[in-house]
Amino acid sequence: MKLRAQPYDIEVGRYEVIINSADAEELGVLAGDRVQVKDKDTITAVVETTDAIVSPGKIGIYREAWESMKVVPDEVVEVLPAAKPKSVSFIRKKMDKQKLTSDELHAIIEDIVDGNLTEVELTAFVTASYIYNMDPDEIEWMTRAMVKTGDQISFDVHPVMDHHSIGGVPGNKISLCIVPIIAAAGLLIPKTSSRAITGAGGSADLMEILCPVSFRADEIKKMTTKVGGCLVWGGATNIAPADDKIIGVEYPLSIDPKSQLLASVMAKKFAVGADTMVLDIPTGNETKIPTVQEGRKLAREFMELGDRLGMKIECALTYGGTPLGRAIGGGVEVREAMVMLEKFEGPRSFLEKTISISGMMLEMGGVAPRNEGAKMAVELVKSGKALQKFKEIIEVQGGDPKVTSDMVPVGDKIATVLSPQDGYVLEISNKRLVNMCRLAGAPHDKGVGVILHKKKGEYVKKGDGLYTLYADKEWKLDAAIKESLRNPIILVEGMILEKIQVV
Amino acid sequence: MKLRAQPYDIEVGRYEVIINSADAEELGVLAGDRVQVKDKDTITAVVETTDAIVSPGKIGIYREAWESMKVVPDEVVEVLPAAKPKSVSFIRKKMDKQKLTSDELHAIIEDIVDGNLTEVELTAFVTASYIYNMDPDEIEWMTRAMVKTGDQISFDVHPVMDHHSIGGVPGNKISLCIVPIIAAAGLLIPKTSSRAITGAGGSADLMEILCPVSFRADEIKKMTTKVGGCLVWGGATNIAPADDKIIGVEYPLSIDPKSQLLASVMAKKFAVGADTMVLDIPTGNETKIPTVQEGRKLAREFMELGDRLGMKIECALTYGGTPLGRAIGGGVEVREAMVMLEKFEGPRSFLEKTISISGMMLEMGGVAPRNEGAKMAVELVKSGKALQKFKEIIEVQGGDPKVTSDMVPVGDKIATVLSPQDGYVLEISNKRLVNMCRLAGAPHDKGVGVILHKKKGEYVKKGDGLYTLYADKEWKLDAAIKESLRNPIILVEGMILEKIQVV
Repeated sequence: MKLRAQPYDIEVGRYEVIINSADAEELGVLAGDRVQVKDKDTITAVVETTDAIVSPGKIGIYREAWESMKVVPDEVVEVLPAAKPKSVSFIRKKMDKQKLTSDELHAIIEDIVDGNLTEVELTAFVTASYIYNMDPDEIEWMTRAMVKTGDQISFDVHPVMDHHSIGGVPGNKISLCIVPIIAAAGLLIPKTSSRAITGAGGSADLMEILCPVSFRADEIKKMTTKVGGCLVWGGATNIAPADDKIIGVEYPLSIDPKSQLLASVMAKKFAVGADTMVLDIPTGNETKIPTVQEGRKLAREFMELGDRLGMKIECALTYGGTPLGRAIGGGVEVREAMVMLEKFEGPRSFLEKTISISGMMLEMGGVAPRNEGAKMAVELVKSGKALQKFKEIIEVQGGDPKVTSDMVPVGDKIATVLSPQDGYVLEISNKRLVNMCRLAGAPHDKGVGVILHKKKGEYVKKGDGLYTLYADKEWKLDAAIKESLRNPIILVEGMILEKIQVV
Repeated sequence: MKLRAQPYDIEVGRYEVIINSADAEELGVLAGDRVQVKDKDTITAVVETTDAIVSPGKIGIYREAWESMKVVPDEVVEVLPAAKPKSVSFIRKKMDKQKLTSDELHAIIEDIVDGNLTEVELTAFVTASYIYNMDPDEIEWMTRAMVKTGDQISFDVHPVMDHHSIGGVPGNKISLCIVPIIAAAGLLIPKTSSRAITGAGGSADLMEILCPVSFRADEIKKMTTKVGGCLVWGGATNIAPADDKIIGVEYPLSIDPKSQLLASVMAKKFAVGADTMVLDIPTGNETKIPTVQEGRKLAREFMELGDRLGMKIECALTYGGTPLGRAIGGGVEVREAMVMLEKFEGPRSFLEKTISISGMMLEMGGVAPRNEGAKMAVELVKSGKALQKFKEIIEVQGGDPKVTSDMVPVGDKIATVLSPQDGYVLEISNKRLVNMCRLAGAPHDKGVGVILHKKKGEYVKKGDGLYTLYADKEWKLDAAIKESLRNPIILVEGMILEKIQVV
């Protein structure tokens, strides 16, 4: 069928066209089917149908297809029904609880990356993966497919270190310290990191306060080769690009299928050439992994997947039921990390976790004897070598190496919330804390952050400051504080919560 | 946040807006999240984000939201983050294999109808329903929700008869005869029918050759009250409107969750006030229900659901492994149905099935004594009363009541496929037959149809005609015939298929 092309300047993430229902019937296609559109080139596009906006005889072509075909408005193109990609039948197979082969998973991941699947098809895949999970073979194959369908880096020198936190703990700024400690010991650590999706700020958001974080894969290699490490945003690279598209479906459904978590983390590490890694699995109330048992199980699964990929992995189960350190989000969190490197000072929980994980990595990397890693990590900080390395990293990424902790900008709109009564801090809610930060503008407004004045178990008097919120904008500060008064972040109670008395 | 409105003349099936990523970050929303858009009215819309087509400070508003808000281009609107609909958490619950309550299912169905769900959310619901299925409670609740969220009819006179075929059998034209037979007996039968989704033509497609089939619910009631019956397209009404949106996801995934099948059929019957019904469940190779065992199970499930809804249901398990009658699709199929009413002539399989099901309905409807229904049905046809009623129905729907079978138009592009050898017809492939009809233009081109000259088991000589294909367009006829020669529809073989010989 010959139709007159009409551009629609809308991005849809795939080749998609829109035709009148009458023409669709004539062609024998329904919404969600594919057509071939032939001009100089031929593309295969997903069909949408309409009774109204595109008249019969015309074909609306969305931006991606339009740009690829380089047609001019009103040019006549030939349109023919086309088959669905094979991967759709593999998705259907997964929906029927069948195990997928390596080739089938590769086809699905490739079509995800190439934008060949509709949102319906992609969602069906993610939902079926969530419901049935995948077995270790499938997870390995999916990981390899995610690696192969994106950019990869490899280094001539080994080991190549890496570190990852499963997340869910506010204030988990350890990467900002671990990367320079490891690099200061002479090991390579090309660290990619995420931005906050639902948190107050990912490591990439924090690092961005000090320097740019968006780099291509080849730039990551160059910087790492030059100064030993970097801390960049994984999303800016074309490393394991399937991941972002899959997250685009997981996020609105608030799901995080375990197979996807494993594949996503490991694909990104494998693709930057990492061969030796420590995984931080925070467990506890309001983390992604509530119990130690689940944490252990996840650790074994990561280690098995590492084995299959030829990567050495150790896991640290850490306590994540309460924020790490006292500073959460934006400038204040970066300051706490820098103070640690500058003076080896800071909240004990934060120092201990950073040093422990760094120590494990130094031992695994072969530069510290067994049980001597933590000591070496402390020395690297105390000697100023880690700080020096951090500045080199900031400089190579295009930031100002002369920056010091007190120069890091924090929001100038400030409010301190006071304790309504005498008592003990019984609970700090990670979720409410993060929610408040987001209402205050995090992670977009870089000045947004919280300093906790009291932590769990501490005694507090009525009128004492519980925490201080920093923000860039007055109206956001107000909204956040209002919400935090409605749903208190910190629970202060006397030790006797309730008296059950004999009448 | 204040943004300048910009219309996008694209239909997306829901309230949806598109904003620049920078503004989205500032607002703290991601693609798939909701925002409130405030002008004179306030609507809640799904957010898409873009780096390119909508510049910061603007908000692209798709057609549905634009029409509802009646803003003018460049008008400033207030945009605020909003919560997801509650039904999203119920969908999540189903994904976690939990049973949904009546209220929860109602909320989901209502949000589907109102276009409050994104494609990701709707697909997750359909996929989870496919994987876990629903229990009888959930199916009843979903059915009731589908009824309540659309138009309903009720009649003062009872019983109100209905009939439904699960489908999958080419040439299944029985509704065109059953409706007038039942109405001729003085019973009410407000029959809604579907168009072909993947078949050669649904009953609504066939009836449309004789008269209009698109009516509102109140028109269906009026026509049925006047002449006793009608045969209209269910999709044109606002009866159980959730169904079409759910099918919009099932079709591209080629799935047909059983819970959905039950709810969809029964909601449509319940909503037109039907209380007494015969369900035709064709079983056999290449039907939707391959085995008699599965057919029986489905029958029980329909009857249980009927019980719950206060409807009397009987089921007829019929043989559907081969086309019904000799005419499949379009004009030729309508002719075969009309000849049956005109002269009580036609292929035995077709006559027998029509009379049997009509007989069951006449007995259930209380107008024929037990075991006398079929006899009565034959009399209604032979006396010409059924034909007379059919013409009344055609007339009340706006068609020409003087139509006779030989006046029904059939395609004038004709090709007959001959047998390549002597032998027996071992197999007629339903799927390939339907595929050929669709390639020839069915169901859009009303002239497209096939007459089978030979049926299963008949002897055929080399050069005898196997079937004749009628089409409206030469190029479609050619394409269809070419495909049917590549993948033969009718398998002719000697009785000895292969000789296994001792060497």
